[in-house]
Amino acid sequence: MTPSRVEAFTEALASAGFAAAVVSYHRDVLYLTGTAQPCNLLIVPGRRPTLFARRFADLARAQSHVEDVVEDVSLTAVRDRLEAWGVPGGRLGMPLDVLPTALYRKASAAFDGFTIDDVAPLLAKQRMIKDQFEVAKLRRAAALFVNVHDAMCAHLRPGVTELELSSEILRRLRRAGHDGVVFYRRWDASLHPEGAVASGENLCAFSGQAITITGTGLGPAVPFGASRRALQQGDVVNVDLGLVSDGYHADMARTYTVGEPHPDVVALAGAIRALQDAALDAIRPGAAAHEIYDATFRMAQRLAVASFFQGWGTHHGPYIGHGLGLELDEWPVLGPAAVTELRAGMVLAVEPKLTVPGVGAVNLEDDVLVTTDGFELLTAFPREVFLVERGRALPVRAMAASEAAAVDAL
Amino acid sequence: MTPSRVEAFTEALASAGFAAAVVSYHRDVLYLTGTAQPCNLLIVPGRRPTLFARRFADLARAQSHVEDVVEDVSLTAVRDRLEAWGVPGGRLGMPLDVLPTALYRKASAAFDGFTIDDVAPLLAKQRMIKDQFEVAKLRRAAALFVNVHDAMCAHLRPGVTELELSSEILRRLRRAGHDGVVFYRRWDASLHPEGAVASGENLCAFSGQAITITGTGLGPAVPFGASRRALQQGDVVNVDLGLVSDGYHADMARTYTVGEPHPDVVALAGAIRALQDAALDAIRPGAAAHEIYDATFRMAQRLAVASFFQGWGTHHGPYIGHGLGLELDEWPVLGPAAVTELRAGMVLAVEPKLTVPGVGAVNLEDDVLVTTDGFELLTAFPREVFLVERGRALPVRAMAASEAAAVDAL
Repeated sequence: MTPSRVEAFTEALASAGFAAAVVSYHRDVLYLTGTAQPCNLLIVPGRRPTLFARRFADLARAQSHVEDVVEDVSLTAVRDRLEAWGVPGGRLGMPLDVLPTALYRKASAAFDGFTIDDVAPLLAKQRMIKDQFEVAKLRRAAALFVNVHDAMCAHLRPGVTELELSSEILRRLRRAGHDGVVFYRRWDASLHPEGAVASGENLCAFSGQAITITGTGLGPAVPFGASRRALQQGDVVNVDLGLVSDGYHADMARTYTVGEPHPDVVALAGAIRALQDAALDAIRPGAAAHEIYDATFRMAQRLAVASFFQGWGTHHGPYIGHGLGLELDEWPVLGPAAVTELRAGMVLAVEPKLTVPGVGAVNLEDDVLVTTDGFELLTAFPREVFLVERGRALPVRAMAASEAAAVDAL
Repeated sequence: MTPSRVEAFTEALASAGFAAAVVSYHRDVLYLTGTAQPCNLLIVPGRRPTLFARRFADLARAQSHVEDVVEDVSLTAVRDRLEAWGVPGGRLGMPLDVLPTALYRKASAAFDGFTIDDVAPLLAKQRMIKDQFEVAKLRRAAALFVNVHDAMCAHLRPGVTELELSSEILRRLRRAGHDGVVFYRRWDASLHPEGAVASGENLCAFSGQAITITGTGLGPAVPFGASRRALQQGDVVNVDLGLVSDGYHADMARTYTVGEPHPDVVALAGAIRALQDAALDAIRPGAAAHEIYDATFRMAQRLAVASFFQGWGTHHGPYIGHGLGLELDEWPVLGPAAVTELRAGMVLAVEPKLTVPGVGAVNLEDDVLVTTDGFELLTAFPREVFLVERGRALPVRAMAASEAAAVDAL
C-alpha cells in the first residue's frame, strides 16, 4: 500500500471542484487506505484523511496507513469534523453508483449545507491504472486457474454433472487461496466463486443476468451458474470465473470438450484463438478502447463468425473486454463506442466468445497488462480449447493440425 | 408460487397510499412473481402487474405467473405505461434500502410527476409470514447442514487449516445442491457460501463486518471467513452459515472441538444449549420479539455468562435472532427493543453465542417456524457442541453427564 493513492485521489477531488468526499464502500476504502473494515473515509483537500470506523477502530488502524482513525459510525461525527475544519458546504462527493438511496437520504440530511455529487467516476478513473503492487496481486490471482484446469482433467467425463464439476472446482480453488467471494459492483448481480459452469444446450440458454454464457443454475431462484445437467460424450463445457487473491480479481474462461469434439467445435477453437490474438495485437498504450473491439470484430467478419460473436441471434453484448482489479469489472470497457485511451498500467480481461446454437460455444478469456510498448499476458495458461479424455487434456487446435501428441495436464 | 403474494402486496400498497410501485430488486421480484430474471415490476392498484424484462422476456414469461411481460429495460417504458393507465403522479414506491442513488436519480427524472417513497418496509413486512411453499423450501435448506457436519467429521483434526475445512465444506454443500451464493440485503456485506469457519484465537478476533464470530479471512482485503490457521488438539471451531436451496436460506451454526475440550468449553456447551432452550421456550404467536431476547438474556444472567453473551468486552450485538427467507437476514429482528408481535408462519433463526477470550466461543443456531400454538424446529440436527475424534462426533454435553458412548456420525 502506498499513501500516494489517497493523495492522488485528494488532488483529483480538488481539481473537480469537490469540497470533500465521504467514501464508505469497502472496495473503495480498501483501495485508498489498505483496510476493508467498515469505515466512512473523510477526505478534504488540505486536510489529513480520516477514517471513521463503524466499530473496532483498532483493526482499521492496524491495517490502514491512515493515521487519524476514530471509532464513530454516525454521519454527524463526519459533519462535526467538517464544521471543525471550517468546511460548511460545497460539493460533497460520495460513490452514488453503490450508495443506497435510503443512506443517501440520511446523508443529505446530515450534510445539509452540501450538494452531494457522484464521486464514483473519479475513483474508477484513478483505479484504472494499476501500480506494481496491484499487478503482482493480479498475476497471483490469475495463477489460481491451474486449479480449475486440474479439476476439469480429474472430473470431466460422461455422466458427471455441471454441479459436481462446480463443487470440485470450488474445493480446489478455495484450498489454493481463492478469497471465496467475488466482488462485483453491480447492485443486482451475484456471482459464484467457481464461476459459471455450462455445457451442451445450456451454453445457448443465457440467463437474463448478462449477455454472455451464464449457465442456467439449479432453478429459477438463482438462474445462473451450474445446473444438474449430466455431461455426454462430445459435449462442450465452458467455465468462466473470477479468481480472487488478496482481494484482486483475475477473470478467465476456458472451453473443454468431453472427449473428441464435433469438427465444428474444432473450427471454433481455431477461430476463438484468432479472435483473441486479433484483440491482443491491438492492445498498446495510446489505442482507444474501441479499437480493440473493432479489430476483433473485423477478424470475426473475416472468419465469417460475426453473427456468433459475443452472443447469438438478436442478442449481442457490445464488448470484448474490461478492466480488472479489486472488482471483477472495472474501467475501461472495451466496447464499440468506448473512447478511453489505453495507458500503461491498465489491466484488461480480453474475452471473445462464439456461440453457435446446436453446436456449442467457445470462450477464451485472458488478462493482460498494458505496458509502455504493448502488452504482457498475466495469465500464463495455454490459450486453448481443451479436449479431456482419461484425465488428460489435449489442445483441440492440435487435432486440426494433426498434431496428435497429448499434452500433459500442465 | 401463488399469485396471491402480488395481490396482497398490491392491497398493502393501496392502503399505504401509493399510486404505484416499481420493484426491481431480484429477490423482491422473485418473491412477487416467481422469476429472478432482471425485470422492473410495475404494480398499480386496480391494474394487472406488468413485468418489464431487461432482456430475454421469454425467460421471465416462462418462470413467472405474471401474464403481462414486455421486453424493455427503459424506465420511460414504465412511465409511458403509467401515463397510458391514467396515473400521472402521486406516491411511487421503490425499495430504497437497496436502490442505488444513481438509479434513484434516473428514476426521479423519468417519473417526474411522482414522489418516490420507500416501499421496502411494506415488502419486508409481508415477507415475514411464510406460506407452506416457503416453509417446505426452508426445511429443505436446513437439511443441507448434514453436509457440513460430515465434512467436519471427515476432516477435523490437528494440523488441518480453517481454509482446508472451508474447501471441504464447500465441496459437499455445493454438490448437495446449495445454490452457491448467499443473498444478503446489506449493500456493503458479502458472505461466503460455506460461512464463517473460525477457530482458536480467531473466535475472539471479530472483523468489523458484524459483532459476531466472523472469522478473520485470508488477509485484510477480505477480513472474514476462514484463515490459514492450523487447528491444534483441543481447539474450538465454529461454523456459521447460510444454507441456500431454491433461493431459500436456512441459517445454522455449530461448534466443534478437536478432540477432548477444556472443561470450560464443556461448561459453555451446557450453557449455550440452556440459552437456546430459553429462547425457544419464549417463542409463541403473540409474543413480542424482544421477549425472546429478554428471556435469553435473563438465562445468561442466571448462568453468570451475561458478559460473554452475544459478544464480549465492550462489544455486544443486541439480538438473539432474525427472520429468514429469500434473504439470510429478514424481519423481524429479535432484539431488546423489538416490538414486532410474533405470528404463525414466521421463520426465525435463534442464535445464542458465548465468547470467552482465552477459552473460545460456542455458537448454536437453529431455525424455527412459529406455529399457531408455539414453534416447530425446522433444523432436525442435534442441538449440541460436538467433540470430533477419529472421524466420529460425540456431543460434549454427554461428557459432562458422564455418558461416554460415542454417537455415530448422524
